[in-house]
Amino acid sequence: MQAIIKARPEVGLELSDVPRPVPGPRDVLVRVSKTGICGTDRHIYEWDAWSAGRIKPPLVTGHEFVGIVEDTGVAVRSVRPGDRVSGEGHIGCGHCFCCRTGQTHICANVDILGVDVTGCFAPYVVLPESNIWKVDPDIPDDQACLFDPFGNAMHTVMAQPISGQQVLVVGCGTIGLMGIGIVHAGGADLVIAVEPNPVKRELAKVMGADVVLEKADEQTVKDLTDRGGADVMLEMSGHPAAIVEGFRCVRNGGEIALLGIPADDVIVPWAEQIIFKGVTIHGINGRRMFETWYHCESFLRRRPKLIEPLITHRLRFDEFEKGIKAMQDGSACKVVLDWTDAKT
Amino acid sequence: MQAIIKARPEVGLELSDVPRPVPGPRDVLVRVSKTGICGTDRHIYEWDAWSAGRIKPPLVTGHEFVGIVEDTGVAVRSVRPGDRVSGEGHIGCGHCFCCRTGQTHICANVDILGVDVTGCFAPYVVLPESNIWKVDPDIPDDQACLFDPFGNAMHTVMAQPISGQQVLVVGCGTIGLMGIGIVHAGGADLVIAVEPNPVKRELAKVMGADVVLEKADEQTVKDLTDRGGADVMLEMSGHPAAIVEGFRCVRNGGEIALLGIPADDVIVPWAEQIIFKGVTIHGINGRRMFETWYHCESFLRRRPKLIEPLITHRLRFDEFEKGIKAMQDGSACKVVLDWTDAKT
Amino acid sequence: MQAIIKARPEVGLELSDVPRPVPGPRDVLVRVSKTGICGTDRHIYEWDAWSAGRIKPPLVTGHEFVGIVEDTGVAVRSVRPGDRVSGEGHIGCGHCFCCRTGQTHICANVDILGVDVTGCFAPYVVLPESNIWKVDPDIPDDQACLFDPFGNAMHTVMAQPISGQQVLVVGCGTIGLMGIGIVHAGGADLVIAVEPNPVKRELAKVMGADVVLEKADEQTVKDLTDRGGADVMLEMSGHPAAIVEGFRCVRNGGEIALLGIPADDVIVPWAEQIIFKGVTIHGINGRRMFETWYHCESFLRRRPKLIEPLITHRLRFDEFEKGIKAMQDGSACKVVLDWTDAKT
Amino acid sequence: MQAIIKARPEVGLELSDVPRPVPGPRDVLVRVSKTGICGTDRHIYEWDAWSAGRIKPPLVTGHEFVGIVEDTGVAVRSVRPGDRVSGEGHIGCGHCFCCRTGQTHICANVDILGVDVTGCFAPYVVLPESNIWKVDPDIPDDQACLFDPFGNAMHTVMAQPISGQQVLVVGCGTIGLMGIGIVHAGGADLVIAVEPNPVKRELAKVMGADVVLEKADEQTVKDLTDRGGADVMLEMSGHPAAIVEGFRCVRNGGEIALLGIPADDVIVPWAEQIIFKGVTIHGINGRRMFETWYHCESFLRRRPKLIEPLITHRLRFDEFEKGIKAMQDGSACKVVLDWTDAKT
Repeated sequence: MQAIIKARPEVGLELSDVPRPVPGPRDVLVRVSKTGICGTDRHIYEWDAWSAGRIKPPLVTGHEFVGIVEDTGVAVRSVRPGDRVSGEGHIGCGHCFCCRTGQTHICANVDILGVDVTGCFAPYVVLPESNIWKVDPDIPDDQACLFDPFGNAMHTVMAQPISGQQVLVVGCGTIGLMGIGIVHAGGADLVIAVEPNPVKRELAKVMGADVVLEKADEQTVKDLTDRGGADVMLEMSGHPAAIVEGFRCVRNGGEIALLGIPADDVIVPWAEQIIFKGVTIHGINGRRMFETWYHCESFLRRRPKLIEPLITHRLRFDEFEKGIKAMQDGSACKVVLDWTDAKT
Repeated sequence: MQAIIKARPEVGLELSDVPRPVPGPRDVLVRVSKTGICGTDRHIYEWDAWSAGRIKPPLVTGHEFVGIVEDTGVAVRSVRPGDRVSGEGHIGCGHCFCCRTGQTHICANVDILGVDVTGCFAPYVVLPESNIWKVDPDIPDDQACLFDPFGNAMHTVMAQPISGQQVLVVGCGTIGLMGIGIVHAGGADLVIAVEPNPVKRELAKVMGADVVLEKADEQTVKDLTDRGGADVMLEMSGHPAAIVEGFRCVRNGGEIALLGIPADDVIVPWAEQIIFKGVTIHGINGRRMFETWYHCESFLRRRPKLIEPLITHRLRFDEFEKGIKAMQDGSACKVVLDWTDAKT
Repeated sequence: MQAIIKARPEVGLELSDVPRPVPGPRDVLVRVSKTGICGTDRHIYEWDAWSAGRIKPPLVTGHEFVGIVEDTGVAVRSVRPGDRVSGEGHIGCGHCFCCRTGQTHICANVDILGVDVTGCFAPYVVLPESNIWKVDPDIPDDQACLFDPFGNAMHTVMAQPISGQQVLVVGCGTIGLMGIGIVHAGGADLVIAVEPNPVKRELAKVMGADVVLEKADEQTVKDLTDRGGADVMLEMSGHPAAIVEGFRCVRNGGEIALLGIPADDVIVPWAEQIIFKGVTIHGINGRRMFETWYHCESFLRRRPKLIEPLITHRLRFDEFEKGIKAMQDGSACKVVLDWTDAKT
Repeated sequence: MQAIIKARPEVGLELSDVPRPVPGPRDVLVRVSKTGICGTDRHIYEWDAWSAGRIKPPLVTGHEFVGIVEDTGVAVRSVRPGDRVSGEGHIGCGHCFCCRTGQTHICANVDILGVDVTGCFAPYVVLPESNIWKVDPDIPDDQACLFDPFGNAMHTVMAQPISGQQVLVVGCGTIGLMGIGIVHAGGADLVIAVEPNPVKRELAKVMGADVVLEKADEQTVKDLTDRGGADVMLEMSGHPAAIVEGFRCVRNGGEIALLGIPADDVIVPWAEQIIFKGVTIHGINGRRMFETWYHCESFLRRRPKLIEPLITHRLRFDEFEKGIKAMQDGSACKVVLDWTDAKT
């Protein structure tokens, strides 16, 4: 079958013929319909320091998908051929402390689809039964292939109460924008978005931000809120200066959820911004299995247009390079690839 | 000044002249603009068993109000004459375990305005500074005098997460209807309301219920949800049979918030509906001081029409009996009294 | 192999020859060393109404055990022959809402070992890999076969904070007594036990109760505590009158964990004891997988004598009837059976 | 009366005559029996950068005390002359968001006793009624004057569950050592203490640490625990390198409570140690009013010797400089001053 692979430890991805994966006794084989391109895929394409240290070529990449079950292993009971499914890309070991206590998303021995093991940028992908999610028929394929990034946003938002809260969202990339949509739909009192890029600031308004700032500013946020700062800060930028300024905008006793991955050191005024203020900070990784998936499904089937504005490119699988270029030049938000016509 | 008082231990309330209350060193004197009539006031009017056991006539009744600060005691610092305020009617002792641990709403020695101490159905009312709430200017008087019942609904809803949840609201009296409005605005996935009265069922739809049932039915609710029952049940009816049926509609591991006061014994199948299902139950009393008030203010200023459909009667203070009759014959939802022209 | 079976729908259990169970691809075959007799086993022996409605003879009974892994299915990865193990008797379906959100203990389709499926009162038992728990070598077999009831007690205790709290334990059967031991070791401020049986009251003192009452009494408990009643009530009796009296002993805002299964209706004064007091109630079923097991292991290896006083009978497997008689006449607390010499 | 004051903006404290403070209508006047010297008092003595920026001489210093109520303001109701009391040194404004939602300890406008307002290093001190704590008669004065630092430790410990947990305590100064005592008494599974000073390491063992390390070391802690690292890290050192190493020792999904105030930047590997591990971090300031005080009282009256080993010096009030010297040279842990003979 055709697949998008990282063939060699260098820049680029290529379309190549690889063998179709075979499900083991607990696995499910899925005929992939659509996939989303993640920022992680772009990093792998660009062969940055993280990719070079983690990826072992050759590797089929990709971890965001929707498709139809084609076959199941002998021990599989809850999924059947013909089921329309997406899947969780964090594959837990099943026996570490986290896996045994409902925290598989932070399994100490996790394998990630398309990063550590064969991914979904192909017409077929294999996942363990326990990672499969049957998709509600009311959610179209274009959205259904985006449970992974939408789930990142959902997990970040749901790390603390949102209804009636005054929320600061720092960073309006794809996940930040999804987060704004969730916070808005979740009954927040006030949604303040921070983003330097004017195009994304416009999208932030479309997604439901009440106020959009080019830069977080402690005094501005304090003036906008009526309790001495934001109740909640969702950090989606990964930008060290923005993170620190975001901390300053949070009220005493507020909550902070951190998702954005910084490339440089983050130096938060430890005593002033964490200890004296008595804040609570949540590190966010992946999606809770499967509380987050239930939440995603709930929000998407009730609001079918929620993340529609973020899908800027719908391409054939073999146009993937065009998609990555659009992500690089900033013209794309979310790129969806169609695998219907791929050689199987 | 004129006031609506329970003069004698018998049915009825009457307008009578009483002395204007005098604030102590920690108190605030408020010129009342508008008041709401609560179901509790109707019970006091009707002199039911509860009233006869609790109320000591003569007593100025009423506990839902908005007004303007007229004067303050010598030790008052945070409130000034001219401030537009409402107030929390649960007056805590300040020194019991609950008062000292942020749970004044369940103070062991609580005095309730218009029940245990002189109430607000008068042009002037006195409250301790710590019970006063300054009202956002964007919230009109008609809504601002309803923080008390709206706060009951808010406290019940906020006792558990609501965003993305499938919620059953049992009982669509005033507070149940307010609860539906909050749950809907708070991003619930599905709102199922239960109410025998067809007029109130229509109001439930107006407030945002997705499905309105005449009677809770385990199988119907299981079919409507996708997780084996409702995630959350908000009990606002106080009707023993409805309470039990509501328990049956909750999924394993679900949450139940109980606000409605039953007149008869409630016999829940203890093992089957509580223990084996592993549910969590929250008894709800009053409003959290002042988390609930912040939430109420957030919801009301952002959605100025949220509880507007529930205000069916706007009357002069001396038409109070007309309001109580309308409550008794079922034609009223919420009755607001205007105290502008009362003799002061 | 020999096994203790319910052969027919009538009173009694008998030792009988049955085929050795065969593990499926995800299963583990365990050579049983020791088993505990649970109150449930006694109910099955006595063929009470619950048993008659649930059990389908013939059935190998028993669900509390420790043993050595003999063989594993083809898809098993985390367990190997020779491992010393116990196991969780609640076998989840793996695909319902609860199973997919870390709440397998309240799976909507649960099968219970020795109740719904072939149990462990035999030299061999089969369990899914995901139900197996490797036992710390420092915990002797006599205690290791009791993770199931100890886990019931642990789950009940851990449903709310205990350190520094004033705790009322209602009912000092085996699980209540284990609960007292955990609460004492967990840093409670005050442990008040309630139990009519004087022998068990003595054991309650041994396990760490500070005060032992024959009967809960609201005024006595209020006088013993300094916050208007107990912070926490652990209900282990299942006795309707004791449950109601227990509720009365809890302070406003307290927490209640319910484990005991009542045979009759429980009529709690709904408004007075739940709503006005603003309590939180937790229904407790089984053990959290595997948070509760980690806690049990922590407590048992650190305090190897913790539940030793409760093991009153150590018998050969074929003396099981003697054990059940001792439970019936009240002379036994916990009975452990040894399966070393059973025909395999 | 005599008092220990910071007379001028320079190094040192001196005994000086000052007027006795007069209680306002909501205040309580206390005859001080004993006081503790805090590290903060030492900083004020040494006139470090923080002191120079915050303290406005002349100022009576000190905030840890026990004494007897001498007089009360006209609006005071819950305290009477003759009551033996300690008091919370964080004086909230009473009207900010935190004060109105049960979080007075992080009031945005807080005044701290002996820092922002006249302190307790004197025979008389004045505090608002709402800050007064009546002390259990079973707790001796020597311990009763230490509720403040003991409360810091308690607040840090109680920020997450401790029973059955594997806990790392980084830093064994006075508060770290108190924290070890609480964690041990609170039923932790394993207590690992980290401290470079060998004298304090010995005290850590006395207080109940199971393992005492000179330096935190990721691999050592992982080997000591059975879940991939510590469940909980209590940061009491304020030492940047120790903080970072402490983060490395926490398991995925663990909890971290930060109390120690660092003098330099703390650079935690943001993605690796916070986000990917999915940890939760609690900034800790002061003591929860008055949940923490209830906890402190519970622990101290049940375990009257709990913090006794930490009181290394008992001095007359006019020997305060000797106490500060002992703190400076490392020979003191906790210094208690007796005010019996001070000129009043």
